[in-house]
Amino acid sequence: MKIGICAPSTPFTRDDADRVIALAKVSHPGAELVFSPQCFTESGHFAGSDGERLSAFVDLANDPGIDAIWFVRGGYGAVRIAEQAVAQLKSAARGKLYMGYSDQGNLLGCLYRHGFPFLAHGPMPADIRRDGGDKAVERALEWIVHRNPVALEPGIQAGQRFAAFNLMTLAMMVGTPLMPDLKGHVLMIEEVSEYLYAFDRTFFHVSSHLKEAGLAGLRLGRVSDVPDNDRPFGEGATDIAKRWCRISGIDFLGSADIGHDADNKIVPFGLATSSSTF
Amino acid sequence: MKIGICAPSTPFTRDDADRVIALAKVSHPGAELVFSPQCFTESGHFAGSDGERLSAFVDLANDPGIDAIWFVRGGYGAVRIAEQAVAQLKSAARGKLYMGYSDQGNLLGCLYRHGFPFLAHGPMPADIRRDGGDKAVERALEWIVHRNPVALEPGIQAGQRFAAFNLMTLAMMVGTPLMPDLKGHVLMIEEVSEYLYAFDRTFFHVSSHLKEAGLAGLRLGRVSDVPDNDRPFGEGATDIAKRWCRISGIDFLGSADIGHDADNKIVPFGLATSSSTF
Repeated sequence: MKIGICAPSTPFTRDDADRVIALAKVSHPGAELVFSPQCFTESGHFAGSDGERLSAFVDLANDPGIDAIWFVRGGYGAVRIAEQAVAQLKSAARGKLYMGYSDQGNLLGCLYRHGFPFLAHGPMPADIRRDGGDKAVERALEWIVHRNPVALEPGIQAGQRFAAFNLMTLAMMVGTPLMPDLKGHVLMIEEVSEYLYAFDRTFFHVSSHLKEAGLAGLRLGRVSDVPDNDRPFGEGATDIAKRWCRISGIDFLGSADIGHDADNKIVPFGLATSSSTF
Repeated sequence: MKIGICAPSTPFTRDDADRVIALAKVSHPGAELVFSPQCFTESGHFAGSDGERLSAFVDLANDPGIDAIWFVRGGYGAVRIAEQAVAQLKSAARGKLYMGYSDQGNLLGCLYRHGFPFLAHGPMPADIRRDGGDKAVERALEWIVHRNPVALEPGIQAGQRFAAFNLMTLAMMVGTPLMPDLKGHVLMIEEVSEYLYAFDRTFFHVSSHLKEAGLAGLRLGRVSDVPDNDRPFGEGATDIAKRWCRISGIDFLGSADIGHDADNKIVPFGLATSSSTF
């Protein structure tokens, strides 16, 4: 199985790519990791210009010899190319699995809007940098290579629809041409490095937009690395989520085992089936 | 003239209120500043609970003895009460001027959506804390008390419609029940304390939402206190604004003399008239 890896947002390093390749060689010898050289290109904040990032993704996705697309890391940048990129995809791109999270939610969302069937919110090669990150990388490969249900977020149940996003990423997608229809879906969200007041504000925005979306409910993943403000907010992340869900009439369904950490589990988009092949 | 002052977001201090009162006594002896005690209430992040902040604003706005409402400062919180607050306003509230900026854009936006005619994006009492903040406070009073055109943003011209917002505040309003119709308006925006990648991301969101809004154009105020990222973004704030305006078909009309600083000029909402009375 050939896994194409590109960087729609920010650059990776050759050294870290080699670590991921070495790890995969042991844990998933059947997987061949094809890092696009674009992963290592730098242009200001980005892994190359908008055009370079767009082409690297489109070329890999349209290549019939590549079985899955794995986004190398988040950061920021996918929003600038997602709509145009998805518009350039051909039939060879439809059968592939696409995996990533954080900023790559922009591509997952836009692909989902356009009916791509195999999408998953899950760890990326850059998670190798985390404490215990080997496990996150291996979990991602377990899903990409074997569709092993052990890698799944434990609340995922056959017969239900799911989607997962970083909250700020989702907030910037709602109402734009990247936003998919989430009717009937359990939406899982997670957040990182945002003040609680900003989390509250973002929740206002997202819940205002999604109150008529027909969600089956919302589950909250981890809200991590919250910076200290000049004074305590006075309410925790879960209570904030519950309050906005109550105000907007969205069912709050509890916690989700996703987040910006090594424990981040896999959430395939769409209808979960009992064969767990999605 | 009685100016009612309340805190829809975060608390102020009695000492700073006394400084503003002392300043106004000299510069605008005809103005009586009525600080609601709610300005000095604290509840976690906020100047009192949602209910306390709501009541303080609604009571002052509906009081026929109060001529203008001046929001004491920004922070975060107005979004949690704005819709409900505006729904509780009675006819006595319609003839008043409302002034503030930053997070108070949520109230200005919602009031504008509901047809309140006298709204202005401009300095608040808390600007007294800035270097040269006396000038900002005096400028605000010049507009509130005398509608003195010298206080206006210099690009404001009779016959044109205007509105002004903090970009992040506006981003969280678009598509929600707080968002006013900005058709035919020159929109001025400013930003503070956001990374350039976040400014770029927010601009994607706002320009996506407003590309069909029929704006007369967009002008960019100051983008200040930009934190250093781990690497340079590679593009300045003005170029970011120009690019998203180009992509979304919004006319970029240049700079605006507004921002989170003592030089922040007044932008009354709606049609500017040659009598400059708005």
